[in-house]
This record gives sequence, C-alpha cells and structure tokens, in this order.
Amino acid sequence: MSAQTKAVSTKEGITARTQDYAQWYLDVIKRADLAEHSGVRGCMVIKPHGYAIWETMQKELDRRFKETGHVNAYFPLFIPLSYLSKEEKHAAGFAKECAVVTHHRLKSQDGKVIVDPDSELEEPLVVRPTSETIIWAQYKSWIESYRDLPLLINQWANVVRWEMRPRLFLRTAEFLWQEGHTAHATEKEALEETYKMLEVYADFAENVMSIPVIRGHKTPGERFAGAVDTLCIEAMMQDGKALQMGTSHYLGQNFSKSADVKFLNKEGKLEYVYATSWGVSTRLIGALIMTHSDDLGLVLPPRLAPIQVVIIPIYKNDEEREKTLAESRAVLSELKAQGILARLDDRDGLMPGAKYYEWEAKGVPLRIEIGPKDIEKGSLCLVRRFVLEEPNEKPEDLRRRRKSFLPRSESLGAVKPILETMQKELLERARALQKSRTKIINTLEELEAFLKTGGGFALLHWAGNAEDEDAMSKRFETTIRCIPFPEELPSDGRGEGKCIWTGRPSSQRVIIAAAY
Amino acid sequence: MSAQTKAVSTKEGITARTQDYAQWYLDVIKRADLAEHSGVRGCMVIKPHGYAIWETMQKELDRRFKETGHVNAYFPLFIPLSYLSKEEKHAAGFAKECAVVTHHRLKSQDGKVIVDPDSELEEPLVVRPTSETIIWAQYKSWIESYRDLPLLINQWANVVRWEMRPRLFLRTAEFLWQEGHTAHATEKEALEETYKMLEVYADFAENVMSIPVIRGHKTPGERFAGAVDTLCIEAMMQDGKALQMGTSHYLGQNFSKSADVKFLNKEGKLEYVYATSWGVSTRLIGALIMTHSDDLGLVLPPRLAPIQVVIIPIYKNDEEREKTLAESRAVLSELKAQGILARLDDRDGLMPGAKYYEWEAKGVPLRIEIGPKDIEKGSLCLVRRFVLEEPNEKPEDLRRRRKSFLPRSESLGAVKPILETMQKELLERARALQKSRTKIINTLEELEAFLKTGGGFALLHWAGNAEDEDAMSKRFETTIRCIPFPEELPSDGRGEGKCIWTGRPSSQRVIIAAAY
Repeated sequence: MSAQTKAVSTKEGITARTQDYAQWYLDVIKRADLAEHSGVRGCMVIKPHGYAIWETMQKELDRRFKETGHVNAYFPLFIPLSYLSKEEKHAAGFAKECAVVTHHRLKSQDGKVIVDPDSELEEPLVVRPTSETIIWAQYKSWIESYRDLPLLINQWANVVRWEMRPRLFLRTAEFLWQEGHTAHATEKEALEETYKMLEVYADFAENVMSIPVIRGHKTPGERFAGAVDTLCIEAMMQDGKALQMGTSHYLGQNFSKSADVKFLNKEGKLEYVYATSWGVSTRLIGALIMTHSDDLGLVLPPRLAPIQVVIIPIYKNDEEREKTLAESRAVLSELKAQGILARLDDRDGLMPGAKYYEWEAKGVPLRIEIGPKDIEKGSLCLVRRFVLEEPNEKPEDLRRRRKSFLPRSESLGAVKPILETMQKELLERARALQKSRTKIINTLEELEAFLKTGGGFALLHWAGNAEDEDAMSKRFETTIRCIPFPEELPSDGRGEGKCIWTGRPSSQRVIIAAAY
Repeated sequence: MSAQTKAVSTKEGITARTQDYAQWYLDVIKRADLAEHSGVRGCMVIKPHGYAIWETMQKELDRRFKETGHVNAYFPLFIPLSYLSKEEKHAAGFAKECAVVTHHRLKSQDGKVIVDPDSELEEPLVVRPTSETIIWAQYKSWIESYRDLPLLINQWANVVRWEMRPRLFLRTAEFLWQEGHTAHATEKEALEETYKMLEVYADFAENVMSIPVIRGHKTPGERFAGAVDTLCIEAMMQDGKALQMGTSHYLGQNFSKSADVKFLNKEGKLEYVYATSWGVSTRLIGALIMTHSDDLGLVLPPRLAPIQVVIIPIYKNDEEREKTLAESRAVLSELKAQGILARLDDRDGLMPGAKYYEWEAKGVPLRIEIGPKDIEKGSLCLVRRFVLEEPNEKPEDLRRRRKSFLPRSESLGAVKPILETMQKELLERARALQKSRTKIINTLEELEAFLKTGGGFALLHWAGNAEDEDAMSKRFETTIRCIPFPEELPSDGRGEGKCIWTGRPSSQRVIIAAAY
C-alpha cells in the first residue's frame, strides 16, 4: 500500500456542518486528502487526490477552450515593475498583494546562506498576479493588421496574490488557474467573446460540476482592475453564502492603449485593439466541496471524479479472497471496457468497513461490494455515494436506499445510468437550495430579517454609487455579488423599482449576499 | 485568419546550417513560430505552436508516469531560504542562480509605483529552482511507516534558475518541466526507481521524439547538487555536440536526513527514507529542433506533431474553390475518423506556395494537395516533409521523391503507414549520425585531431578526479557527458585501459563532447 491510497484513520471524524461549517470544510479537505497548508505562508500543497480533480477540471475546460477556437501558450512568471505600472488602475488594484523579486543570488556568510546584497536587480520583478501587462507587451509585436486578429490565447499557470488570511482553495497566496487573453478588431467581437467565455464557464459549472450559477455583471466597485466590464458567475454554497466561480472581463482598449498595440483596420486606419480576459482557478475545488459534500466527506459529481467506481472484495479467508478477487478483477475490466474510471481496492490488512469509510470520504460516486454470497447468488451490491433525500426521510432509510442488489447480468449495464442520474440530481439539489434561499427584498427591514434567519441571495433594487455600496456592505456584512442578467431573475423580480438604499429609481435588481 | 496561423512572410529565410548553425537554430524557431524572448531578462514566451508540441510531450510523458504508478500533485512555488539551506551541497549548487522574493507589496510615491520598503519579508523566499527541499519538508508529515511507502509523486511546474546567457529552449531563466520525487523504504527499491525512470525517458526520447540516446552516469563533478548518483540520457545534435535530455537522481538519504524524514521499517526500527528525483524540461524542444530540422525549418516526428497532416486546396476561381474545398473537407473528415491529427488550410488570399512554405517551416509531417485535376483523375498528391536521403542524391531528386500521386482509394489508407515510416526513419537517420561521429579515442593527440575535424562523441578511458576533469574540460572546451552504461558502448570500447589524462588504469570509457 502506498501513501497515495493511505487509509485515513477512522478515528479522525468530520465535524457536522450544522455544528461548525468552517471546521467541517477543513475536515472534509483533510479526510478526502485534497490539500494542506505548507510551511510557506499562504501557500498550499495540492495533494494527489485534490490534484486529480484539478486535472479533470483542466481537461474539461481545455477541451471547451479549444472547441471555441483558442490555443494555449506560455508567458513569463515575472513582470517588470514598469510593465505593471503602465495601466494605472490595474497597478493600483494589485499593488497590495504583489510578491516582488529583488535579488538573483545567494551567498554563504559566516556559515549561513544569505541573499547576496550585490545581486540586486536593476528593476524589481513582480511575480504575476495576472498576466495582462506582460502578455500585451508581447502582443505588440504580434499584431499589425486586422488579418492578425482575433488572437485567441489561453494560458494555464500559477499566479501569486499575497494573502493575509489564507484559506485552503478559497484564498491562497499562490494558486493555479487559466487565464484567457484575447485581442479583437472590434468592440462588438470582443464583447461577444466576453459573453461566450462566461457561457463556457457556466456550462462547465452546471454540466460538469453540477453547480447552478447566476450570470451577471459586477458593479464598478467590484470590477477587475483595468476592465470596462466584468461578467461573473456566482454560486450559492450550502450555508447560503455566495462564491464567485469565474469572471470574464471586457477590457475595451485599456490594455492596448497602455501597451500601445494598434492594428491597421480594413479601412487602412490605425486603431487600438479591443481585449478580453477571463479566468477560473483552483478556487473551484472550494466551491465543489461546499456545494455537494456532507458529513461523511466529499461528494463528487461523476464527471469530475478521478475514480468513479471503487470495487471492494470482501473475504474472511484465503479461499474467499481468491474467489472475490477474481470476480472483482472481472468486474473491473468490464467497467473499464465501458470507459468508466474504475478502481479495485485490493489492499490487504484493511477491513472492508475502513475502505468504505475512506472512499466515501474521498467522494467516489459508486462502490461495488463483492462478497462470497454475492458470487453465489450471482448478484452485485452497488452503493451510491449520493441519492436525493426524500421529505422527512430517516437517516437509516436513506442509507438503505443508497444500496441496490442487482443480478450480475444487469448490474454493470446499470452503472452508467446510475452515474448520470447522480450527476443530474446533484445539480437538482443544489438548484433547489439556491431557489429556496433566494428572496426578493424591498426594504432594509426585510433584508435585516432575511440575513438574521440565515440569509442567502437577496434580490433588491439598487441605484447607489461606490460609496453607497461600501456603506451598505459594511452595515450588513454582505457584498453586491452581481447585477444578474435579466433572464436570471424570477419573473416577479424584473422591472422597475426604487433603490433600497438611496430611494432613487432603479431599473434592475442586484444580488446581495455574504460571500467567500 | 487569426494570428495563430499567421503566415510567415516568405521574405524571411532560414540561414543554412552549414553557414551558421547558431543562427539557423534561431531562424527555425522564428519561422516555425515556436518561441521568442520576452522583455524579462532570460524569460521566453512559448508561442502556440511551440506550446502545442510541449502539450504533446506532456501527454506522452504523463501517461508513462501514470502507467508506472505515479500520481501528480502540486507544491509551492516559493521555498523559504532556511529550507533551501538545509542540504548544504544542494544550497551551494543553486545559490548563484536563485531569484529571491524579499517584499510583498508595492506603493505609489510621487506618482511612481515602487516596492514598499515596509513590506519586507521576515524570511526571504527563493523561487523554486527545483523542489526537493520544499517537498521533503512536506513528506515529513506524510510518512510514518513502511506502509506509507513507496510515495510516487510527480509535479508539472515552472522553475527559475537565473541565467546570464539565455538561449531559447536550451537555457532560460524560467522553464517548464516535470519533477518526480519519490520516497522508498530501501536503497534497492530507490535505485530501481532511478533506473526505471531513466528508461521511461529513454523510451520517450527514442520512440516519441525519434532521438537516440546514450544512458549513463554523470561524474561526481557533474552530479545534481545533493545526489548520490545522477543518471542521464545524452543525445547528439546534428553539429555533433551533446545535449543532456533528462536526468534521474538517486538521492540516498541526503534529503530525508536534512528534512528529518524517518519511517518505521518492517522490523519496527526508525530509519531514514530513501529518495529519488527525476526531470525533463522544455529544453527537449531545443533537442528536437537540433536533431531533425533542416534548412526549410522544423521537422517533427509524427508522434509529436500537433498537426500531422495539412490539407491544401488549390483553385483559381470560385468554381474550383468550391469543388476542391468540398473534396478537402471530405478528406479531412476521413483522416480524422482514422484518429489522425489533420487540418484543412482553407485561408483565402494566400497562394498555395505560401501555405506549403509555412507548414513545412512548422514541421507538419505530411501535406495533401488537392487541385481540380487531382479530383478529375481521382487521385491525391501526398508530400512528405521528410524522406531518408540516398547517397549522393541531388536536391531535385530528393524533392521529387517526397511527392507521391496515389489513387484516392488507396491514398488515405497510406497516411498512417507513411507517418509510421517517417517516425522510424528519423530515428534511423539520427542513429546513423550518432554512430558516424562517435569514435574510440586512446590518446590526447587523437582527441585533438577528432575535435578539430568537427568532433562528436569521443569514447576514452578516464580515471581522473574533479580537478583533472576541470583541466581537461578547459583545454578541449568539452565536458565529460557521462560514463555510459556498458551496454551502450560498442564492443571494442569495453574492457580495461589507461586513463587518457592521468595514465592511471581505467575500467571504463567516458563520453567527451562539446555540449549545449
């Protein structure tokens, strides 16, 4: 047995969500063996199971990027300070969280290794917090005429934003992400790209992660530093708080102007290029955990599961061991032939119960138990990690319902449909929660009452400015998550109204919520 | 047309290899649009076509790592100075090339953005030049007993080694790589892993990159800083110089001791863990270019080609355009159905010749030309990027031989065999070159003459120490590339002899060569 599959001691339990949600989150990460803090302030280690989930996310996203005409490339980790300073708002937005390289050599002094003071750089280098400035500096030599456009490039990379209050996956000093950076000949085309990529993210969130999202615009105060418009998808976690899952920015000509990137348009005139950028990060794993997981540990939508089915042979002696292992191997290869990500847990010296416990905590969608009696009866025992709860259902009934005994001949054909149903029902459950905790709010009193009783997404009319937004955020410990696209609002939430804070006329409701 | 497929101006030629090899290398990179320097000293930008080749390499390597039981994970970019200092030789080995983060904030002063002096870190952070120290600090809490071993982990990451004389792909301050870091209960098992991963690299080099390699040990002076033994694969470039393609290190207990990682062995005793690490990087793309490419540009072995076949319709008017495009699309979908990476170049406003020129420079293995006459005759014109040259062949004959006109019905079935033959013949050609420029050398005079006439791999007896190695390297502007495994030597190169430098008895020949 290797540590990749190291059994988590059954002594380490998981705090109940109802008891301490923040601790529950950390316990799930620990029990599912997803990540841990490192000795470097704010930097996490993504452990193999967590990284395998990220790899699945990457594969699904990368395919979608390529299908929409994008290609990958790689730009430098370091940004000269002068580049970052070019776009004023951008520099101001990131100034407080920049890791800065100032020296390029170490030396030994009195038996200690120190930074060599003689190796100071002429110009400090900022470890990229995002790559607009370094990429646009490069685009300058790539773009001459409209024939060179659009330029549709994505980068998979690590970025650093210094973080004083780190939280695994949700806020870490270094994180992994992808950042798309596109260049276009017209505003119309750049705007289309901005919306298209938001749609790609929303599709991924809903159809791969089983997380329903609200599409919308950020308010000017919450916009990406240097953007003309920031679109986002927001999801509701199980505790009713919001989590921003991805953003897509229309950058107008801000970065092409600061990097001086012009192109010859079809009319033969020089014009600044129009830009977009868009990204999602390992933060998505935080959203995943907080949307679906339960007090047993992680719950993974089958399309994101690095292991979709785990097979566990049950035996008491060598003879049974041989028999159940043979049948397990047969089942394994039949599942693999169907393209299902299956794994056989044939570790000796671990009781089946300990294995169930471990794979449940790791979120494996389906477990197949194979004992001597199952073989005799010609059946298999399938245990689903997740089934939709029925109203007022007792825990023992739910537990029973997770289990099916099926004739061997039917059981393997049943696996794919079971996984597909689980994928859909996870989305359904999350959607039901979001719906139940989203409320149209028309007065500050109503808002206060809503937040006191647990909160969620409050839909309220808003026409305030940035100062109003600040004041409101402080008073209620919430933020304006987004101005939803009209189609995202319930029909009774559309239309004109009065701003809840300023009393001014308002044509649109916003979502207010506490957020991660 | 987007800049991803931007036509390289036919005015930009490629310097002939015979005229200026170093310039030829840069010209190929430029014409194939693989990479370029950035505004950040020593850091390159990997452009889409170059990155697509890296993605193919990653996919092939990652599959091999997983098949041999490894999993991926991710560790922090930053290494606290105190971690790096723990293993003395390791710290000394990397001290001169470390980028160091010393501050974590910027601020505005007199309208300028500067590093905020109040944000100095208590402990400087080194941007990882390699990750042994940070990973072993983490392994300390992952490993308790032999049950937790082996730990077989790989990381795909960027690393930084400050570089004063950067060269695209070959030596850059930041580069992309993978680094395996494994932990074992016994020396035997760790050594087996070290050799196994070298074999994985050699298999990848020969069967995917079509580059023959020599497996061997580094001399103590060329060993990885902190390793007990460094194994390597060395390849010969077209100019006879050597290039190290990958290394696999047996680290003994050096890092487990400096990080204090002990495990309870089967006998119930505490023991330090045995370690290995191994890596290859984007440098491989430099090796790829210098092994196969020619004066027309890049040559790609089909298994590494992001585009294996490009289809080019030839037309003079709208009617012909419609007809040849329809046939091109049909051919495209038939090739795709075979799992071949095919692409249709349907850009208007570019002459077919310009397209040929561009895709040849980018190394696409096979071009299919489709004109109205081909359709009439029911045939297709297949043009191979590479065929083995025959002795004393005239360029025009070679050019003619690259082209085949095949009946439509046979042609598409012929594509896969053509690609497979090309894959093999590239390896064959490189192997022939390596053989022809490898020579058994017994005296310094012979060595001098060998190097004067172009050089290559000189096989000579060696029993010198580190000082001898330095002196010899300086005199001949070469290095000892490796002590080849005995089976890598020609039969007349095995056995006892006398050190060419010291005259001492020697039991083994080494390879001496000029190197990248």
